[in-house]
Amino acid sequence: MEMNIALLPGDGIGPEVIEQAVKVVKAVGKKFGHTITFKEAIVGAAAIDATGNPYPDETHEVCLQADAVLFGAIGDPKYDNDPKAKVRPEQGLLAMRKKLGLFSNVRPTFTFPSLIHKSPLKKERIEGTDLVFLRELTGGIYFGEPRGRNEQGTKAFDTNVYTKEEITRLARMGFEFAQKRRKLLTCVDKANVLATSRLWRETVQELEPEYPDVKVEYEFVDAVAMRLVQWPKAYDVLITENLFGDILTDEASVISGSMGLMPSASLGTDVKLFEPIHGSYPQAAGKDIANPLATVLSAAMMFEYAFDLKDEAQAITDVVNRSLAEGVVTEDIAEESKPSKTSEVGDWLAEQIL
Amino acid sequence: MEMNIALLPGDGIGPEVIEQAVKVVKAVGKKFGHTITFKEAIVGAAAIDATGNPYPDETHEVCLQADAVLFGAIGDPKYDNDPKAKVRPEQGLLAMRKKLGLFSNVRPTFTFPSLIHKSPLKKERIEGTDLVFLRELTGGIYFGEPRGRNEQGTKAFDTNVYTKEEITRLARMGFEFAQKRRKLLTCVDKANVLATSRLWRETVQELEPEYPDVKVEYEFVDAVAMRLVQWPKAYDVLITENLFGDILTDEASVISGSMGLMPSASLGTDVKLFEPIHGSYPQAAGKDIANPLATVLSAAMMFEYAFDLKDEAQAITDVVNRSLAEGVVTEDIAEESKPSKTSEVGDWLAEQIL
Ligand SMILES: CC(C)[C@H](C(=O)O)[C@@H](O)C(=O)O
Ligand SMILES: CC(C)[C@H](C(=O)O)[C@@H](O)C(=O)O
Repeated sequence: MEMNIALLPGDGIGPEVIEQAVKVVKAVGKKFGHTITFKEAIVGAAAIDATGNPYPDETHEVCLQADAVLFGAIGDPKYDNDPKAKVRPEQGLLAMRKKLGLFSNVRPTFTFPSLIHKSPLKKERIEGTDLVFLRELTGGIYFGEPRGRNEQGTKAFDTNVYTKEEITRLARMGFEFAQKRRKLLTCVDKANVLATSRLWRETVQELEPEYPDVKVEYEFVDAVAMRLVQWPKAYDVLITENLFGDILTDEASVISGSMGLMPSASLGTDVKLFEPIHGSYPQAAGKDIANPLATVLSAAMMFEYAFDLKDEAQAITDVVNRSLAEGVVTEDIAEESKPSKTSEVGDWLAEQIL
Repeated sequence: MEMNIALLPGDGIGPEVIEQAVKVVKAVGKKFGHTITFKEAIVGAAAIDATGNPYPDETHEVCLQADAVLFGAIGDPKYDNDPKAKVRPEQGLLAMRKKLGLFSNVRPTFTFPSLIHKSPLKKERIEGTDLVFLRELTGGIYFGEPRGRNEQGTKAFDTNVYTKEEITRLARMGFEFAQKRRKLLTCVDKANVLATSRLWRETVQELEPEYPDVKVEYEFVDAVAMRLVQWPKAYDVLITENLFGDILTDEASVISGSMGLMPSASLGTDVKLFEPIHGSYPQAAGKDIANPLATVLSAAMMFEYAFDLKDEAQAITDVVNRSLAEGVVTEDIAEESKPSKTSEVGDWLAEQIL
């Protein structure tokens, strides 16, 4: 198969972890006989520094022409504590999601047998956890207008807004995921307070009869924030709005014991994007110590979701499991073994695949 | 001292748990020589059923004339899955908070030595946790206008809005709490996306020089959702907007191992209100099995925050600790011991105080 992959390393540790994913993807291409070409583009703080725009048009073109996008991370602390900064790296991420129509962020949460003891949660609570969040990614309070300040600057406002259409397409994807899994769908909202949440609940209720094999539960976001830690095994597929998804998926990532392992896929109308859920981790940038596994596993999701190549995806998951079992891992998760460098983990994984 | 206390039992298990708190408060009054009078009023689903209004004017009057309000719980499932219900019990709660000016919800999170093994989190992660959230309670997306639907009903919107004034009064309270504690204040926001959050961050930054002994940290809400489970001991005082506070304080309640134990105080301009953080738990209502300890501990907070009576508060905390140590507890936390009924726990606590 021919595959054109856009690489958007972004900021902080982004470039380092993307480099390792590329090694692994190349190895998979060689082994399974695919022709893979890569094209790199800038985004985030890196793009602001170079062009003033965190998601330049040229980068958008590169994404549009690709079959899939591999994305690293975005964010730079120099912008975080300056509430008045005019352009922020995150705007690039949001513009990219919106312009590429990536309305669904798929974030699985699962545990690794060899890492389960690293979780702050007790083993019996989390062993066997297998849930997936579908977070709406191009709507809600992230994009709603009006947003900003009054003239004197003493009052600020944001607008949360959802249309039935936006909810329906995300919800349908949720029902379809559930049909292929354990057939339980949880709609997470705050319908006891928010008008948007009541539209979510109503819309999902209306779709229920079309998917009679799926059991639907409705839960308030505060209750889910609690139950997710108490008993994550209770969940299968969860659908939710952009902001709740942001908070809950980060919370859920703790279950696995390491953020450095959790991949994600952003799906929508055409192009598909794959990225680790961790951030740009600027303190570690350039030190060759960042954990590349989340990005490597995002590449596995790419083979499965963008190219429908399950064997290739499985080959990557297998070597990642082996690296965990044999202790070829970076310092954040190394224990008995001597920690490996970011680049060493990438090299090892690529070799193991070939 | 003379104390007028308004009792708002509300829905579900509310009446049962309030009854036990009243027994304990009466015992404290007797022991310490206070004259305590109670006046009961309706709120929530109970009030809708009786008057059509979830926070009737008469109830508001009772609260205004009281020195403190003891509140049970609100909510009835018959309203939750009806997105088109015109009046909902929660509106009573929100109206009450707003009309009484209760802008700060104080929610401590701590662990009980005898219960620590019940937490889904590992002991070494949580032992010694002692943090307190100050959740803004009368602003944000809970109250912002406009909110509702477009004419066709296909689009819904909510408005998150904060003024510098609202943020300042909550933040000042946060700084003052921190000064009396470990001197660390964490401002939780989503300043990389929301205009309201940027005003929060800016306002808190401007206040910093007035409290040079307090160290201030700024963290994104998604990061806090994660770190709260990973390492809760890192936090001391956290301040945040209404919605983030709703989600994070429920999440934090898991640390202690039981929601049935966590009290809260709502402070503002005049009247002060005290309530357990758990909900109305309708499945248990009327069965004499609900855990009254969170409400009893809320009464302890009442003596401390509303009347500045620390010994009285301590007397209650002491007997609660004794009930835990001796296993005089309801079925949700009973282990070796035979579970006690709700009413038996209340009787035992009151006796122990006298
Ligand atoms: C960087 C930030 C804007 C972003 C978000 O809130 O969506 C991040 O937290 C994420 O989850 O991808
Ligand atoms: C019942 C609901 C409206 C309420 C809230 O969201 O504030 C509750 O969850 C709480 O935290 O007191």
